[in-house]
Amino acid sequence: MRLATLAIDGSVTAAVEVGGHFIPLPAEDVGALLRMPEWVSVVDRHLNDEAVVRTADAHYLPVIPSPGKIFCCGLNFSEHILETGRDLPEYPTLFAKFADTLLAPYADLVLDGTSNHVDWEAELAVVVGTEVSRCTREEALAAIAGYTIANDVSMRDWQKRTLQWLQGKVFDASTPLGPVLVTPDECDPISGLTVTCTVNGTVMQQGDTSTLVFDAAALISYISQFTVLRPGDVILTGTPGGVGMARTPPLYLSDGDVMVTAIEGIGELRNRVRMSV
Amino acid sequence: MRLATLAIDGSVTAAVEVGGHFIPLPAEDVGALLRMPEWVSVVDRHLNDEAVVRTADAHYLPVIPSPGKIFCCGLNFSEHILETGRDLPEYPTLFAKFADTLLAPYADLVLDGTSNHVDWEAELAVVVGTEVSRCTREEALAAIAGYTIANDVSMRDWQKRTLQWLQGKVFDASTPLGPVLVTPDECDPISGLTVTCTVNGTVMQQGDTSTLVFDAAALISYISQFTVLRPGDVILTGTPGGVGMARTPPLYLSDGDVMVTAIEGIGELRNRVRMSV
Repeated sequence: MRLATLAIDGSVTAAVEVGGHFIPLPAEDVGALLRMPEWVSVVDRHLNDEAVVRTADAHYLPVIPSPGKIFCCGLNFSEHILETGRDLPEYPTLFAKFADTLLAPYADLVLDGTSNHVDWEAELAVVVGTEVSRCTREEALAAIAGYTIANDVSMRDWQKRTLQWLQGKVFDASTPLGPVLVTPDECDPISGLTVTCTVNGTVMQQGDTSTLVFDAAALISYISQFTVLRPGDVILTGTPGGVGMARTPPLYLSDGDVMVTAIEGIGELRNRVRMSV
Repeated sequence: MRLATLAIDGSVTAAVEVGGHFIPLPAEDVGALLRMPEWVSVVDRHLNDEAVVRTADAHYLPVIPSPGKIFCCGLNFSEHILETGRDLPEYPTLFAKFADTLLAPYADLVLDGTSNHVDWEAELAVVVGTEVSRCTREEALAAIAGYTIANDVSMRDWQKRTLQWLQGKVFDASTPLGPVLVTPDECDPISGLTVTCTVNGTVMQQGDTSTLVFDAAALISYISQFTVLRPGDVILTGTPGGVGMARTPPLYLSDGDVMVTAIEGIGELRNRVRMSV
């Protein structure tokens, strides 16, 4: 099952992809859909409804536009850990984002010069489908609604101003999320999916989700030890090696760049950088 | 003007304090009240309504139960920073909390052994009253709805597991917030208010808000450079010296302890620690 949050004729709706088209669902977005206890049955009941838009013509919004919580895990791909000069971690390094941080899958990444070191971080994101608290790994696996793609675009100058990364990670409209949520029956990151980030056609990052130190279920179980996770909450699982700040010389996004973030079996985000002055 | 979010006869309401009593307001909590553009007039129109509860009998909830964003500033009291031989910071150190992190002003702080190093951090909190984006200091001052008290209770073992403090700062129901929001005409932290934390009657922390490196307006202006702040958003401004982990030997909260967090002119939070097994 592939779900999206779309703008159709000026309103926003959750939709399910069937045969290259989208069928609208009775929920204002995929987050609202997941908050319906019987959301799988709701989708099933609409699979024979009329398709209203081709996937190629769809206007995608962030697949979960307003998560209650967004957690991000840093330092979770061994290659990326090594390039930042650190040892393999015993615990996941976690920070937060806000709903305002999210960006639509094909929207321009608009910069205004507040940061001059804007970097890419391609990531697998997992979306929670069931409320969990202090859950085991098995309960966490069962609580996964599905997977999507994020780019944890990071303002390195702001990220490094202090010990805490948050301020470089929560610029409004900087983290594209989507384009679709793919349910676990069609998407298995544990067996390995290729995550890539290309900028202007050059592959900058490439990683394999089977090499995550803490996989999606491990992160859900860990986080649920101290805070409840609810349907529509999102966890970004960390980025592979190849970020701009670790290159020689460092390389950052600039006006006109096209950043494509792709995960095998899910799809891609495509965001053009635009300077606004 | 002193505002609170109260539970009265099984429902939740914003209320204004007049002469030792509370008058209910037509908003489900103080956050909802602040989202009304003319909230000051709304309060004014109800000042002669019937008072329904004495302040001494009120059942207080977190004064803003569901902020859209909660920012916290670390390392912000100049007295404490200078006495430890450090330089004053150039930028505020920021991290986030969630609405689920909040606790009622007089509720038990329930612990279950997930953390064994639970520490206090008495803090002045500022609440945003007007939407601001990329605002100046003067605009930030004008956007302040008022001030309240928080205790940024911190699970030091979890906080220190990784470079990012978040996981030790967002245990559900751990940060008391309230009891009232006091508007700036009745509360002036810039001229100096005493912040204290006592545990079982012993003063552990005492600081003066006039010594904050980044005051409330500075924090609002700084944060608004990268993300919009809206009515009801909350910023914790940092804690003075005297936290448990810095004592010799370190001292942490345990079953039965009573933690009182007070700020001159606002009031106090009183939370009893209760172990639940």
